Amino acid sequence: MSVFAFALGLPTLDQQGACIDCFFPAPVKAPEADLAAAIGAQFQAGTAMLAPEAVRGFVLAQQPDIAPLLEADRPLAAVLLAADAPVASTPEAFLKLHLLSHRLMLPNTLNLDGIFAHLPTVAWTTAGAVAVEELAAKQLRARIEGRHFAVLAVDKFPKMADYIVPSGVRLADSNRIRLGAYLGAGTTVMAAGAVNFNAAALGPNMVEGRISQGVILGEDSDLGGAASTMGTLSGGGEIKISIGRQCLIGANAGTGIPLGDRCTIEAGLYVTASTKVALIDERGKRTGTVKARELANRCDLLFIRHSATGEVQCRVNPRAIALNEQLHAHN
Amino acid sequence: MSVFAFALGLPTLDQQGACIDCFFPAPVKAPEADLAAAIGAQFQAGTAMLAPEAVRGFVLAQQPDIAPLLEADRPLAAVLLAADAPVASTPEAFLKLHLLSHRLMLPNTLNLDGIFAHLPTVAWTTAGAVAVEELAAKQLRARIEGRHFAVLAVDKFPKMADYIVPSGVRLADSNRIRLGAYLGAGTTVMAAGAVNFNAAALGPNMVEGRISQGVILGEDSDLGGAASTMGTLSGGGEIKISIGRQCLIGANAGTGIPLGDRCTIEAGLYVTASTKVALIDERGKRTGTVKARELANRCDLLFIRHSATGEVQCRVNPRAIALNEQLHAHN
Amino acid sequence: MSVFAFALGLPTLDQQGACIDCFFPAPVKAPEADLAAAIGAQFQAGTAMLAPEAVRGFVLAQQPDIAPLLEADRPLAAVLLAADAPVASTPEAFLKLHLLSHRLMLPNTLNLDGIFAHLPTVAWTTAGAVAVEELAAKQLRARIEGRHFAVLAVDKFPKMADYIVPSGVRLADSNRIRLGAYLGAGTTVMAAGAVNFNAAALGPNMVEGRISQGVILGEDSDLGGAASTMGTLSGGGEIKISIGRQCLIGANAGTGIPLGDRCTIEAGLYVTASTKVALIDERGKRTGTVKARELANRCDLLFIRHSATGEVQCRVNPRAIALNEQLHAHN
Repeated sequence: MSVFAFALGLPTLDQQGACIDCFFPAPVKAPEADLAAAIGAQFQAGTAMLAPEAVRGFVLAQQPDIAPLLEADRPLAAVLLAADAPVASTPEAFLKLHLLSHRLMLPNTLNLDGIFAHLPTVAWTTAGAVAVEELAAKQLRARIEGRHFAVLAVDKFPKMADYIVPSGVRLADSNRIRLGAYLGAGTTVMAAGAVNFNAAALGPNMVEGRISQGVILGEDSDLGGAASTMGTLSGGGEIKISIGRQCLIGANAGTGIPLGDRCTIEAGLYVTASTKVALIDERGKRTGTVKARELANRCDLLFIRHSATGEVQCRVNPRAIALNEQLHAHN
Repeated sequence: MSVFAFALGLPTLDQQGACIDCFFPAPVKAPEADLAAAIGAQFQAGTAMLAPEAVRGFVLAQQPDIAPLLEADRPLAAVLLAADAPVASTPEAFLKLHLLSHRLMLPNTLNLDGIFAHLPTVAWTTAGAVAVEELAAKQLRARIEGRHFAVLAVDKFPKMADYIVPSGVRLADSNRIRLGAYLGAGTTVMAAGAVNFNAAALGPNMVEGRISQGVILGEDSDLGGAASTMGTLSGGGEIKISIGRQCLIGANAGTGIPLGDRCTIEAGLYVTASTKVALIDERGKRTGTVKARELANRCDLLFIRHSATGEVQCRVNPRAIALNEQLHAHN
Repeated sequence: MSVFAFALGLPTLDQQGACIDCFFPAPVKAPEADLAAAIGAQFQAGTAMLAPEAVRGFVLAQQPDIAPLLEADRPLAAVLLAADAPVASTPEAFLKLHLLSHRLMLPNTLNLDGIFAHLPTVAWTTAGAVAVEELAAKQLRARIEGRHFAVLAVDKFPKMADYIVPSGVRLADSNRIRLGAYLGAGTTVMAAGAVNFNAAALGPNMVEGRISQGVILGEDSDLGGAASTMGTLSGGGEIKISIGRQCLIGANAGTGIPLGDRCTIEAGLYVTASTKVALIDERGKRTGTVKARELANRCDLLFIRHSATGEVQCRVNPRAIALNEQLHAHN
């Protein structure tokens, strides 16, 4: 059997028995032949709820690190995806989000069709995931019993850090990073930063702005405080935004176009796809005007709004020139 | 007796016996005659602290859903507001905030005079509400005993979601929505969104920016990432901001004037009341210049900063034209 | 012995016995002669881990308020800094952060060399500080046992409010204020506000924007929603930013230069050090153009971007003129 992805996890069920959350400590993507054969011998494609006892042999032989799962007092979720098909169950939705945050898949490479339909809106509380219909009664009960019970979020997506903290990252406020974010090693997300599901900072990066769904921030690029990247879900329309390597999006700036490598947008400037941009060459000479979307994915650009004329301009990035000169100096 | 609003709730008292927090699971606004009569027969106008036993008959007959309150180990707060007078006690202040978040009153329709004076600054912790004077000793004690004790906020206003999660909303980070926010069904507040007390998103809305005290966001309008609405407490002066239906305030944009329906402010542009705005008609012809405040509450406006000249312009919103054309096409 | 600073505290150790967190309930700076002598008689310069019993006499005589520390079930950390030398241990790093948040030292007056090297990246969880290497196993174990276990942050710096809440402040979301922030009395930090370590709001202030490392906000100044101050760690280079008294940085605005007193930057305008600024005198006459860095630390300036020409302009602040006229009226 072909195994696209597989995981055993611990589901949270609501009072009707519906799965509203699923934690997979060690998801597997494209396993090697031996493990794939063992998975195929034990599990069927799709989602199953199985007594811990039923998977004891498999876990001890194949995934001993997650043996504590066998102590669970309820059925485990086993999800076997033979192929990357549309999401067909809540555990499948959670598995795909895990694949992204475990760095097993990059954003925009997974079939996420149906994910919104299969993720219920859940109250994420200090007593775990709670169905929103059950919330008011639980809040009243906790108050009466003098137990603290905080509602941290009410959302389809939980916080990544409660499922996986990938190696080498710093997260100043974990509330702002959804499960399904891909954070590479060396990435710091500051208090004003935020990373949606199916969005990436490949690392190392300093992220003080918002990485929207579908957006990828390249190596050594920084996203300044409250800087914005337009997502396809949030105003960017059909254009998929990405930001190359060694870019700097200044504080309170934003981009509605994908950028190549070594690009800078000055603090406070928002470049949208339809912004008209004057092109200035290395000698300071104006060479034309284009819509910003025509500059998509180009490298070594510096975007500013001229402080005397208010004109949005694009210059060859002096940082790139400096870098070139430095490189030449070593020739 | 006239009953403007009524509620029974569970107060939190500090070590001096002062009320620093009050949770009302089922506040009532303008009750029907039978309930009003029952309230009037049992309670006096104002705030009272009563033994649970004293209200047993009333609760079981009139509000059986909150019967768990009768199990409380301390007095309950009973607040009966005969009229919408200035806030006269801490439980009254909490009741008025509940009325807003329970969608029983719209922002700017409640008398909130005195609310700041009657809301003490409280440490909102993982052990509940704690008087700030008692905090340091409790923190030290918890550390010594190995109990986690986090201070989530220190504020007059607690988080809405710990009191009521209205139906049909999603809240990516509940820390950013104060009790007293009014969130209509279909509203999503993302990680960069924030909603103050006495502020509303009528729903459905996508809220990724800040709704200041006194501001109302209309149906089907979106507030982009980190977008700002000037509040009367925060720079807007006397002008009360509201945003109509089907508006879009772009990411990192802002408004200091109230907007009518179907208005757009492009990403990154902040329109203040005194911004001089060039008016451009449907044929692209300049028809004059006004201060933005003169455009208050007008519909179908598109605000941009021209990318070549830096001029702030107001055009008839092409989305409105497109909508009109679409409507005409169906005639 | 010279005593620059001293504190007894409760460390958190990881499974290898390394200190990953240290809580000092009552740090001391430049103690008076008697206390300095008592410290010198009992402790040696540097960091020591001591049995509570070993410091019983000292604590009861000198710091009775922290006597609960003597009940600790593990060694206490004693840190004695003879001088303000580079940071040499994790407890020393925590002590210096405490000195700032306890208002015993102002930002930029402490030697913080080495602080990054001595602060391990830690998972700050609802079960306290956890070494990142130990996190995954603890998360799995908590899930199996049905205990809620949330990862609030993964960072070198913890949240200030879990160590000290200085008097007279309000913090809408404590996740956004790091230990090492200096918050003066009368300061309110709203949901979009953030304060880094070695950064200050001297108070009273309304902080709805980001105070970067090294930045000081003066008395009676307001930082608008999502307003940005460039830090030396985040794009500001060598220029140390400070903001004087009675300044207003508008919402979504920002500054890359230090400001004197009574300066205003209008909402949405980002002034960087290299922004060219037209100077306009009190009669509205243009008197020249300078780079913004030449206006560093000047008082009574109003920065705007002209809404018709897009030019960044600096005018004498009309608020300052109004103030002057008012003062003259009372002569």
